[in-house]
Amino acid sequence: MKPSLPKGTRDFGPEKMQKRNYIFSHIREVFQLYGFLPLETPAMENLSVLTGKYGDEGDQLLFKILNSGQYLKKTETSDYNQGEKHLLPLISEKGLKYDLTVPFARYVVMNRNDITLPFKRYQMQPVWRADRPQRGRYREFYQCDADVIGTESLVSEVDIISMINDVFARLGLTEFTIKFNNRKILSGVAQALGKLEAEGPLCVAIDKLDKIGLDKVLEELSATGFDTDELDRLKPIFNETDTLDYLSELLENSEIGKEGLAEIAELTHLTQHLSKELNAVFDPTLARGLSYYTGTIFEVKINNVVMGSVSGGGRYDNLTSVFGMEGMSGVGISFGVDRIYDVMEELNLFPDDQMLSTKVLISTFDDESRVVGLQLMSTLRSEGINTELYPEFGKMKKHFQYADKKRIPHVVIIGSEELSNKVYSLKNLQSGQQQQYDLSELLEILKK
Amino acid sequence: MKPSLPKGTRDFGPEKMQKRNYIFSHIREVFQLYGFLPLETPAMENLSVLTGKYGDEGDQLLFKILNSGQYLKKTETSDYNQGEKHLLPLISEKGLKYDLTVPFARYVVMNRNDITLPFKRYQMQPVWRADRPQRGRYREFYQCDADVIGTESLVSEVDIISMINDVFARLGLTEFTIKFNNRKILSGVAQALGKLEAEGPLCVAIDKLDKIGLDKVLEELSATGFDTDELDRLKPIFNETDTLDYLSELLENSEIGKEGLAEIAELTHLTQHLSKELNAVFDPTLARGLSYYTGTIFEVKINNVVMGSVSGGGRYDNLTSVFGMEGMSGVGISFGVDRIYDVMEELNLFPDDQMLSTKVLISTFDDESRVVGLQLMSTLRSEGINTELYPEFGKMKKHFQYADKKRIPHVVIIGSEELSNKVYSLKNLQSGQQQQYDLSELLEILKK
Repeated sequence: MKPSLPKGTRDFGPEKMQKRNYIFSHIREVFQLYGFLPLETPAMENLSVLTGKYGDEGDQLLFKILNSGQYLKKTETSDYNQGEKHLLPLISEKGLKYDLTVPFARYVVMNRNDITLPFKRYQMQPVWRADRPQRGRYREFYQCDADVIGTESLVSEVDIISMINDVFARLGLTEFTIKFNNRKILSGVAQALGKLEAEGPLCVAIDKLDKIGLDKVLEELSATGFDTDELDRLKPIFNETDTLDYLSELLENSEIGKEGLAEIAELTHLTQHLSKELNAVFDPTLARGLSYYTGTIFEVKINNVVMGSVSGGGRYDNLTSVFGMEGMSGVGISFGVDRIYDVMEELNLFPDDQMLSTKVLISTFDDESRVVGLQLMSTLRSEGINTELYPEFGKMKKHFQYADKKRIPHVVIIGSEELSNKVYSLKNLQSGQQQQYDLSELLEILKK
Repeated sequence: MKPSLPKGTRDFGPEKMQKRNYIFSHIREVFQLYGFLPLETPAMENLSVLTGKYGDEGDQLLFKILNSGQYLKKTETSDYNQGEKHLLPLISEKGLKYDLTVPFARYVVMNRNDITLPFKRYQMQPVWRADRPQRGRYREFYQCDADVIGTESLVSEVDIISMINDVFARLGLTEFTIKFNNRKILSGVAQALGKLEAEGPLCVAIDKLDKIGLDKVLEELSATGFDTDELDRLKPIFNETDTLDYLSELLENSEIGKEGLAEIAELTHLTQHLSKELNAVFDPTLARGLSYYTGTIFEVKINNVVMGSVSGGGRYDNLTSVFGMEGMSGVGISFGVDRIYDVMEELNLFPDDQMLSTKVLISTFDDESRVVGLQLMSTLRSEGINTELYPEFGKMKKHFQYADKKRIPHVVIIGSEELSNKVYSLKNLQSGQQQQYDLSELLEILKK
């Protein structure tokens, strides 16, 4: 039997793991620098928690878990005959989580009495979607989310934008752009065009701008009922400059639109007082599709790399209303680890030395040298130096091959000469140089 | 609708997460110190990979995932009528992983051409079992495993025992005992008693010694066919001393038994040459139940705490033979994070300062002071100091309550006096002291 992986899932071997951990640990450090606290929720949630939160399509994409034990005990032949939709709730009560937001909302509702507001939490966990697997789209993938809930202050938006800036700077991805906008502006635009009811289709169409271009966006809008005059009044927001001036004019009579503009002005005012430059620009054509955002929205692109956004988020009115708890406004950000990984590979941004695990391999050839090697191994480790002793004797070539494949930079050789002189031969595998040292010299070199 | 968690699963809120991460990061650091490399496998595996690897009971305890989309499309009413066992493979092809060992074996087989032997990997991931939930037993829980495969050298056993020692020492759990034994000795004992075929029942019964006591163990053995003479010859291995002498006598004519004793002697010889003391003792009554071990076995108990073992493992002959790949001997260890967590709580071993996230909260009262606060926040963060700005104005009492609940030790107050004098008031929440500083003094104090 030849074993295989389920479609759309992946193993992460040592090299990939070390690179992924490099990304995760930088993101985690920044989250903590900003006062976000960790949360983890189970992989499984009750289907009553998950169903209906992601639309009909989302419900289809949930992985459902068969009830354990006698999973047919609540069913009869007639239930089977009524088909999949009828049978499902009788044989499955749990599913794998689809995102981190709904489980977070459930956590907040269940722990409302213990949570201090504003609550800043981060969560880095896998989620599962029964999507058709394709290049860059997986059925199991990690999300890295941070949210502030329980305050409407724009300081939270400042935190999020500044945090995005820090994450990408620390990863060495200096050439990025944070675009931000406000859903209230888009509502206002729809209102100003006399089409408040068409805000949804407007956002969906604008969201495709990068993929299909302006002409096709306008075509799509025309097909959903925007007339020529309306489109003409919309077009100037796609200009590269002066859009703010145009918007103040266009939104003059839209309360919600003016609110959006005021929030953009306030956010710009606040970010200007950070003691650093942010790669952030206002972009009124940022829409974030059909998502549930109601205020500020943002998205990050890596400049000069053909790839969708690597991070995105925004403010929502009410995280927990789906569970009957009102008034929990918040703002969140999600980092797309798979895309960040791919772009860092493409730009060769993973530092070599971060990927090292073992620093020195000890090579011995008989019981006597092994005993000395064990002692040395134990001493080096107690000094915090990642050390291995090659577990077998045999040809030294094999030991060196092992070090080479595992990218171990140093080999200590304990041969008969070394034994009688009570020294250690240290070979640097990069330079090829080999020299004899006593223990204190060896420690000094390896601790560097 | 009141949301709930699936039975046997848990949320880990900020405080628990920080404590768990403290344990995980210490274990990970030690794994890396010993040259183990990280691996992660998907939560889902094909049922063809999982089924039949854990016995009939294990197969029952696997969580099965319903095929996505039209899950009944391969079935007819007659399949339903044939019952659960028949229907299962037609509606479910995947399951959640039950342990980390079988997925590791699958990984090794699928990547046999890319793996450098000996292969040292660690894996820290959740696993799922549809067990009846009870105190201390969960349906989703983490395993922390490290294995060396591809060498029969006892140096790997030395690594594992020394590693266990380091992990518990670093966690501050200094009062622990590593017991070790060898399955070959237990085989030898069964052989010496003329009951080689009863090795399984012998191990299962001895394994219960701690729980039920010697008398009940002997009763159980008697029930499975050991006669009085055989039990009399068995009893001396339960003595506290001289068991090695007795065993060399008893196993005189058992090849496998003598092999086991020789391995114990070799292991003892090798560990004596580490530059440190190990809390390791030979215990011939250690059995590790029905597990698949074939050589050295070990188990860790915390002294003076009523609790099962917190870690255990051993050597197996062939990790990958279930997938048709022979000759892959190895030795592994598993740390029980939930139990380690509980015992550390009981002994109060989590250091307070490890649990802190934010170091300083900035409190402002109007737009002018907020602008100054944002600048300070940004500066402190750029110096690596975990900082938050309370996002709202309002009563200062609320700001202090927030700091208190989040255990933030310092609050910087920027009031009107501070603004006009260009200073910052720093309040230490533990001592209650408050003093004014300029920026450089503030940085000096907070960077400590």
